[in-house]
Amino acid sequence: MHHFLNEKKRISKSRWGHIISERVSELPDSEFENIMKIAKEDQSVISLGPGEPDFDAPAPIVNATIKALKEGKTHYASIPGLPALREMIARKLKKENHISLDDPMNEICVTAGSTEGLLMGLLSVVDAGEEVLTPNPAFLAYEPMIDMVTGEPVPYKLSDKDGFQIHPEEIREKITNKTRAIILNTPANPTGSVLSKKVLEEIADIAVENELIVFSDEAYEKFCFGKSKHVSMASLNGMHDYVLTFHSFSKSYAMPGFRLGYVAGHHELVKKMSQIHIYTSLAASTANQYGAMAALEMNQKYVEKMKHSYDERRKLTLQLLKNTHTLHVEKEPEGAFYVFPRITNGKKSSEYVHTMLKKAKVLMVPGNEFGKHGEGFARISYATGKDKIKEAFERIKQAGF
Amino acid sequence: MHHFLNEKKRISKSRWGHIISERVSELPDSEFENIMKIAKEDQSVISLGPGEPDFDAPAPIVNATIKALKEGKTHYASIPGLPALREMIARKLKKENHISLDDPMNEICVTAGSTEGLLMGLLSVVDAGEEVLTPNPAFLAYEPMIDMVTGEPVPYKLSDKDGFQIHPEEIREKITNKTRAIILNTPANPTGSVLSKKVLEEIADIAVENELIVFSDEAYEKFCFGKSKHVSMASLNGMHDYVLTFHSFSKSYAMPGFRLGYVAGHHELVKKMSQIHIYTSLAASTANQYGAMAALEMNQKYVEKMKHSYDERRKLTLQLLKNTHTLHVEKEPEGAFYVFPRITNGKKSSEYVHTMLKKAKVLMVPGNEFGKHGEGFARISYATGKDKIKEAFERIKQAGF
Repeated sequence: MHHFLNEKKRISKSRWGHIISERVSELPDSEFENIMKIAKEDQSVISLGPGEPDFDAPAPIVNATIKALKEGKTHYASIPGLPALREMIARKLKKENHISLDDPMNEICVTAGSTEGLLMGLLSVVDAGEEVLTPNPAFLAYEPMIDMVTGEPVPYKLSDKDGFQIHPEEIREKITNKTRAIILNTPANPTGSVLSKKVLEEIADIAVENELIVFSDEAYEKFCFGKSKHVSMASLNGMHDYVLTFHSFSKSYAMPGFRLGYVAGHHELVKKMSQIHIYTSLAASTANQYGAMAALEMNQKYVEKMKHSYDERRKLTLQLLKNTHTLHVEKEPEGAFYVFPRITNGKKSSEYVHTMLKKAKVLMVPGNEFGKHGEGFARISYATGKDKIKEAFERIKQAGF
Repeated sequence: MHHFLNEKKRISKSRWGHIISERVSELPDSEFENIMKIAKEDQSVISLGPGEPDFDAPAPIVNATIKALKEGKTHYASIPGLPALREMIARKLKKENHISLDDPMNEICVTAGSTEGLLMGLLSVVDAGEEVLTPNPAFLAYEPMIDMVTGEPVPYKLSDKDGFQIHPEEIREKITNKTRAIILNTPANPTGSVLSKKVLEEIADIAVENELIVFSDEAYEKFCFGKSKHVSMASLNGMHDYVLTFHSFSKSYAMPGFRLGYVAGHHELVKKMSQIHIYTSLAASTANQYGAMAALEMNQKYVEKMKHSYDERRKLTLQLLKNTHTLHVEKEPEGAFYVFPRITNGKKSSEYVHTMLKKAKVLMVPGNEFGKHGEGFARISYATGKDKIKEAFERIKQAGF
């Protein structure tokens, strides 16, 4: 018994390649974690990197969470989320997004950020080898998530020439008999583009004709600027059954640390997703869900103020970008809190960003992190103070970029 | 454009079977969610059902979380968890579990409960069709989780005849060239059994000889009663590389609503798991992680008091079970907060539990929820007040069970 064991028994480096699953070995070596680390730890760097509001969560949210904690709301919540929260979400979806659910209590599931919701959605509709159309460049999690569930991401290209809009005909061409879903993101990370109602309607036609589920990631719904307007795919006539809508509390209410989002869609899908939820994280944090209720109930001026502030920073950033020699914005972004300029000095994204970090102590995210069609771009987040934005571009100028 | 759409365009019931993925269609129809719902919503029922401490989170945990919220800790945490929390976890693992890590900051990842950790672990080592040995009856998530990642669960049987101990020779017999991992759970849900060091050593031998990763789920580590003692598999000589250890804050510190757990293991695996974490939930709730630090730092008398209380309830439950006609305990459970008696009136688990609920207004969980070898048993959770336990058994007696 236990005859072989001694302190030195180790697995050799080369064996780990056999032990770690293929699906995970093939995950891209994301620089994202490293970038988040630098942004958090190196005080000498000005970060235009991570996609996170710089605002603390508004007081009503914090106070409601504290109240819940004091009242002993430290036990498990219902798996799909607190019933009162789901009711509020249904009212919010109706009022703000014009999405009418048939059976709200079975058509909403509260998740650990919309990330978990997206994973649950993919697990619900994608089997091995089935295809999901996904924007590129896009939120860096889409393609790896599809890989992780052994599906096939089929990227559709977004280009700065037309402000990163979707071309429905490209989507139509890429549909095969293995296609199960289309991912949309509006307003979009990393491009800042807002999809027009016309484009959404054309994609709606394609989804219904081909019986595809549309994953509509609307995490940045609150932040549309200028003349742009957020339209929820599920609000279009007849689309109730075909859309899973993903919302997040993180950006809209400046509460990413609460890890809360939600998905809404047909009960056949959402019930399955709630079942999957048992195996991904069981339920979202309970006291935090009380904070989320406060977010939906509070005076929405908190959100308006943040939006106004992001818009000012957006204008400032776009203004300052004009003075750089190496970054070019083809069409001004109208949503989220990102600009995604083209790098014009011929450098690859990663080299450009690393040189920038070294010489100017300013952090951006290399465009290729968001997919192959993001190569040659850099993502700038303007979710930071105006003074920091000014200082960052001063450094960029001094360093000759 | 958008020519077809009208309010009535719906997906028919029969089409959903095509749309929903096979992996999810095949998930068992769990009664667990329904049971949790009854337990939360029907005040006339005494619940011996859900596996959740009845204690509120101790004051130091609540206070630390409130303090963090007030200080604006509402932003994203580092992906693998707050560095200070990971350092504390490493010290806790060394002191309490005798697990020495090589490189703690890269060998610990904080998760949304140990559920998410287990899923991340499976994704890291299991490809399609590969096998994972899993106890049966066991925590109801293991087998569906393995299915969900398109692996093959290979159940090994636990029997009440010997107090639900593992027979290492059965494990050895079930290993094939597709086996990648063995799941262990000690103290165990739903059986209350505690694995002996001898059994763990035998399984350690098997794991090393066959290069298998042991998933050691130790969510109930704090609750070992009588002469039983919790032994962590990763503390055995030479096992550092072969074990992923899963711990949870939920049970140990009565904070399930915080959704916090952690995994510890070789950095090659844990680094991959942290990468997966980006696609499952990104990071655990930030303020809650400050609560977790307080849990590790507080006077552990809070834990001792809960343990003492569970032990008293365990003894009471076992005593009262002797007076029933239809439930039989072969060997007294020594851990967790469950008893898993055999049903002796010939009824199947589900029918028995539903009749009990109807006639006695007492809720248990049908044994078959925990796997096929749980058929013919019922799970009783004694994580509830003594008065409720007494009242429950009074009702059981009155109803003639």
